[in-house]
Amino acid sequence: MTFFELQHQDKNSCARAGIIHTGHGDIQTPMFMPVGTQATVKTLDSFDLKNLEAEIILGNTYHLHLRPGEDLIDQISGLHKFMNWDKPILTDSGGFQVFSLGEQKTDKGQGGLTKIDEEGVTFQSHIDGSRHRFTPESAIQIQHKIGADIIMAFDECTPDNTPKEYAIDAMERTHRWAKRCLIEHKKEPARHGYQQFLFGIIQGSNYEDLRKQSAEFICNLDFDGVAIGGESIGYNMEATDQILKWVYPYLPIDKPHYSMGVGLDPADLLVAVENGVDMFDCVAPTRLARHGMIFVTEKNNGKHRINIKNKIFANDFNPPDKNCGCHTCKNYTRAYLHHLFNAEEITGMRLSTIHNLHFMINLMKQARQAILEDRFTEFKESF
Amino acid sequence: MTFFELQHQDKNSCARAGIIHTGHGDIQTPMFMPVGTQATVKTLDSFDLKNLEAEIILGNTYHLHLRPGEDLIDQISGLHKFMNWDKPILTDSGGFQVFSLGEQKTDKGQGGLTKIDEEGVTFQSHIDGSRHRFTPESAIQIQHKIGADIIMAFDECTPDNTPKEYAIDAMERTHRWAKRCLIEHKKEPARHGYQQFLFGIIQGSNYEDLRKQSAEFICNLDFDGVAIGGESIGYNMEATDQILKWVYPYLPIDKPHYSMGVGLDPADLLVAVENGVDMFDCVAPTRLARHGMIFVTEKNNGKHRINIKNKIFANDFNPPDKNCGCHTCKNYTRAYLHHLFNAEEITGMRLSTIHNLHFMINLMKQARQAILEDRFTEFKESF
Repeated sequence: MTFFELQHQDKNSCARAGIIHTGHGDIQTPMFMPVGTQATVKTLDSFDLKNLEAEIILGNTYHLHLRPGEDLIDQISGLHKFMNWDKPILTDSGGFQVFSLGEQKTDKGQGGLTKIDEEGVTFQSHIDGSRHRFTPESAIQIQHKIGADIIMAFDECTPDNTPKEYAIDAMERTHRWAKRCLIEHKKEPARHGYQQFLFGIIQGSNYEDLRKQSAEFICNLDFDGVAIGGESIGYNMEATDQILKWVYPYLPIDKPHYSMGVGLDPADLLVAVENGVDMFDCVAPTRLARHGMIFVTEKNNGKHRINIKNKIFANDFNPPDKNCGCHTCKNYTRAYLHHLFNAEEITGMRLSTIHNLHFMINLMKQARQAILEDRFTEFKESF
Repeated sequence: MTFFELQHQDKNSCARAGIIHTGHGDIQTPMFMPVGTQATVKTLDSFDLKNLEAEIILGNTYHLHLRPGEDLIDQISGLHKFMNWDKPILTDSGGFQVFSLGEQKTDKGQGGLTKIDEEGVTFQSHIDGSRHRFTPESAIQIQHKIGADIIMAFDECTPDNTPKEYAIDAMERTHRWAKRCLIEHKKEPARHGYQQFLFGIIQGSNYEDLRKQSAEFICNLDFDGVAIGGESIGYNMEATDQILKWVYPYLPIDKPHYSMGVGLDPADLLVAVENGVDMFDCVAPTRLARHGMIFVTEKNNGKHRINIKNKIFANDFNPPDKNCGCHTCKNYTRAYLHHLFNAEEITGMRLSTIHNLHFMINLMKQARQAILEDRFTEFKESF
């Protein structure tokens, strides 16, 4: 069975519907992956995720390396068993966190010393300042031990405003590292008895020529899927839309396309789907939920969200979103959620997390149906 | 149908098995009530509680009065609807919190001015220092609006070391307030369309003569059930055992007996059951759970608990308690819980809360079965 099966391409856009086949089951695309950084999606357990009909979740190599450590996870035959989740998992390579968290100082003023060389990156833990080193080879070995179904090449993630000279250096290093990741992965592609699939990552900051050069390079390598990375992706949707349009012509039609970190607003997913993206992850839906920001179908001040902590919801006995069929919306009111946040009850965070994730997963189901029926553009406009 | 049905009295002890009938269903005794102070059992929602087979939960009048306020709860026809829990609820009267939390100062140095007079108590909110007043009448009116199936008389809760002179004053005031609560309750015993049942509370601090005097007084009034209160109850098990033995001869056989706040250690419940107590509540099982203290069947350093944060559990792939059939023990390991607490993940608190509550609820089910089979003493010894 092939890894990725393209089922349909929308007639009026680049939007695609497909299926990814893994040793832990199928994933229908386009899809949104809840982020379970530290072997749990914050406030939820694996049964909550099943109830949400999540078909895949994301784990984070940097965080899992620091806690509990890949060797412990390896000891119990991988992350699926460790967290009792038997559906697909994707791990990022840690590249993003090494460069973002690795530069933060701990409370004790430690850390902040991320050093890059041709071989790899030396960084300090954001937790205790201890020193660690990732190379393309070790990032793959760690991901083999963690055992996600889809793993990512180790890359250097550059910010929006990177000077061109540095963006070229970082991109070319990312390309050399991509090849090393492929070589390392081939040594042990199924450590826990099932195939792990490796994705390459396109970088090149916000420069058209670099993005195209990187897309061409990465898409010509023997990866199972292609991701579009960089700090702009997801956080600057104007740039994201532009970058996706630049790289689209290079993306292989027979491999999944993954834009890393898109989903700050639900509508952002549709922008990326329109550009041929199949896979999404973003911490925003869960992080916003923990701060009482609830996704809603009808826009409120231009955004698909309300702040449930606002006093106007204190006696609003409607469901959080009247069009939603999630556990939270079927069973609890805005007034109850408002009270839970006002009284600083953790249950409020959990119920909001369930809602926001259901909202994203369901939006992708609806988008998929629209693509299969060649009406994606209307669907996007109506949302 | 009578409110309380005594089914069986153990042949070799005072332990009893019974059924309490309410408008929201039956409760089999002896039983443990999870504490849902602010309209939620911390970290759980009402479906978690159903899955735990909790037959009744507890809400707190003081906290619900401050947030969200009894009028809001009244607007949606009571706490059951507000939190979407359709089984029985008990609310305490707020007496305990008025005297304990009312004396605490807020971050801004406000509060701490609890003033008692014959009419009632004036206190400051522990949240914002705002001034409030409870009288026996208002405490009942608030509980009518909240709408629990079982409500409590407003009492003055005295500490372990109360001087006798003050203990007498407080007890006599509690007795006068008890009568006023009964009068107030009869004015509107079914505000939301179902009967609310009122319990009286025995006080008298740690003095034998006062406890007996209070027991006689309260048990001769027209309450639906009798509670044993006071700061010692539950927190000083030697005193609790003694007090329960003093009052037992006065307790009416045809009404439920409720010792307020017992459950710091699971074994404490069995001590009280042996003294004829039917109902329990305690914040300890949930509070301990949130700090990683997990109840276990086999004693560890003399207590029925382990600290899951201890390093020895980092690679312990056994369930939290090998004899437990709860959601957490069926699906997750000690190593996973250890990791969740180590990584400060809220999911760890929730899974531990589920376990500790299941442990208490299940212990009471087993005790009930033992009583019905006249082997309670053996059951208690073996635990």
